[in-house]
Amino acid sequence: MSATPSHTEIVASMRIIITGGAGFLGARLARRLLELGSLTDSRGRSRAIDKLLLVDVVAAQGLCDPRVLHLTGDLADRRFVEQAISTDTDTVFHLAAAVSGEAEADFDLGMRVNLDATRALLDRCRLLSAPPKFVFASSLAVFGGLLPDPVPDDAPLNPQASYGVQKAIGEYLVYDMTRKGFVDGRSLRLPTVTVRPGKPNRAASSFASGIVREPLAGIDANCPVAATTRMWVTAPRTVIDNLLVGHEAPASAFGLTRSINVPGISVSVGEMVAALRRVAGDKVADRVQWNFDPAIDRIVSTWPANFAPKLGTALGMQADHDFDSIVHAYIADDMPKT
Amino acid sequence: MSATPSHTEIVASMRIIITGGAGFLGARLARRLLELGSLTDSRGRSRAIDKLLLVDVVAAQGLCDPRVLHLTGDLADRRFVEQAISTDTDTVFHLAAAVSGEAEADFDLGMRVNLDATRALLDRCRLLSAPPKFVFASSLAVFGGLLPDPVPDDAPLNPQASYGVQKAIGEYLVYDMTRKGFVDGRSLRLPTVTVRPGKPNRAASSFASGIVREPLAGIDANCPVAATTRMWVTAPRTVIDNLLVGHEAPASAFGLTRSINVPGISVSVGEMVAALRRVAGDKVADRVQWNFDPAIDRIVSTWPANFAPKLGTALGMQADHDFDSIVHAYIADDMPKT
Repeated sequence: MSATPSHTEIVASMRIIITGGAGFLGARLARRLLELGSLTDSRGRSRAIDKLLLVDVVAAQGLCDPRVLHLTGDLADRRFVEQAISTDTDTVFHLAAAVSGEAEADFDLGMRVNLDATRALLDRCRLLSAPPKFVFASSLAVFGGLLPDPVPDDAPLNPQASYGVQKAIGEYLVYDMTRKGFVDGRSLRLPTVTVRPGKPNRAASSFASGIVREPLAGIDANCPVAATTRMWVTAPRTVIDNLLVGHEAPASAFGLTRSINVPGISVSVGEMVAALRRVAGDKVADRVQWNFDPAIDRIVSTWPANFAPKLGTALGMQADHDFDSIVHAYIADDMPKT
Repeated sequence: MSATPSHTEIVASMRIIITGGAGFLGARLARRLLELGSLTDSRGRSRAIDKLLLVDVVAAQGLCDPRVLHLTGDLADRRFVEQAISTDTDTVFHLAAAVSGEAEADFDLGMRVNLDATRALLDRCRLLSAPPKFVFASSLAVFGGLLPDPVPDDAPLNPQASYGVQKAIGEYLVYDMTRKGFVDGRSLRLPTVTVRPGKPNRAASSFASGIVREPLAGIDANCPVAATTRMWVTAPRTVIDNLLVGHEAPASAFGLTRSINVPGISVSVGEMVAALRRVAGDKVADRVQWNFDPAIDRIVSTWPANFAPKLGTALGMQADHDFDSIVHAYIADDMPKT
């Protein structure tokens, strides 16, 4: 990412869009891009970022930088998408989504936000002056059913909830529209991202953040799945770095797919609480309560919890060392300082 | 299919819709249904067919039966779909499609006919008085890339052309909407259907019919792929029977998917011509010419040519004995009598 363009070639600055730009990951990705200052375009040239458009249903807070623009609207509305994405866009990071619990509770909402918006963005990208890079935040939820342990890169997609189905469909569209030359797409199947700051959301995996975040804030937190339930997880700082690795990967790194299983670590929920206990003590860890919720467990238990991510690792993606370091990352990066 | 309903229960007659009802397979399926006279509904009851609606962009020809209705329109138009499908519909056979060559040449047409229409139909089915059976004609084109030989039922979907991508997306929608209780779906991955009567169409596999049909009619035919190219094929009469098996299969026969690899036979194109030679003689077989077409070969060569279809076979689906019998089936069923 630090290579400079050839001095014999005039290379315009880079224009980047982040959907879900007001969300936790979107805003964090934006900050990281502003720090980095440049990215590699689809022709392999390092270019300075001079415009970073954050698109979301609400305006992003607290990013004061002359390169940043904000736009609010509905990405499933094709007129909005047409206006939002200028023809000189070089990269789209598509992070906007209805989370797993929402998409399961409201089928139409999930189809609209997770499928229609993705398709509208891809269709818009066909009309840009050059095929942009398109980084699609997919999910381990595209997997389900009986799978080898660890899950190999070429495991079949067999999602068992609507969120994973919609993400799987997005991956197929990204691949086909890459094959057609409409975009230079990369679909990154993210692990469960924890520890997220802020409030619980309707992701079925929301508790995986809550059982660390709330006890550290002096609040009781419920764990709705068994302590033996294993999950494939990543810290926010790690997944942001991996999103950038996915963006920077050369097109030649891919075979007959544009999907990447993003590295993570496999831990049981009981091990998460044990890590919290080691880092923050008994009084904090004892704030975790165990009340089983079958609606949450029904979704989470279909997700595989252990992967062998060959392509992602070969591209340079990283995993956290252990869950203790994920707890430490939250305390360092995101825990409110009192 | 011959079980009669209990005499203590009043069971209304069965209302069936075939999309693509004016096409070769749709019209043939319609004739077979009229012969049979009854089907099993989603509650396992055998019911007399009293209404068979054939929906297509053009009116179906030559089916004169009081149970048959015709309707022409665009299935990607949700207003048409709403009007076309009455709330008391019991079964939808969704055969309408843009064929592989069309969908590759015109991306938007393929998305509209193969994806939007499928989704509009499924969405309409959610509003019926009871979840109907939904038999979706998928294709072996959902597969591609490196695969075991023979291809197992749980092989990953990795389509390498837009037609297969659109069919794969349809399968995921059928499964998810079955899981949600909106329909009782079954996606049947059909082999290449040969020998089709009539004229060549824009399916990449169209030559597999042409190299038998045209020589038998005294016309030269071109084979655009190498004689060593293998294909997974079925006779029309066989695939119609297998569509009915797929319809009749109890919901309990399925696991964490609603997709079935439909049985076929694996033959090379050279073996097809050799079979034609055995059945119809040298003069006929010598009418096959060999002019390689990279656009056709690029699509056909990505399709796997040999499967181990366990679920389909367990349900009672059949394959043809050999390609000689497929040639004989064409001569008996479809060849114009002069």
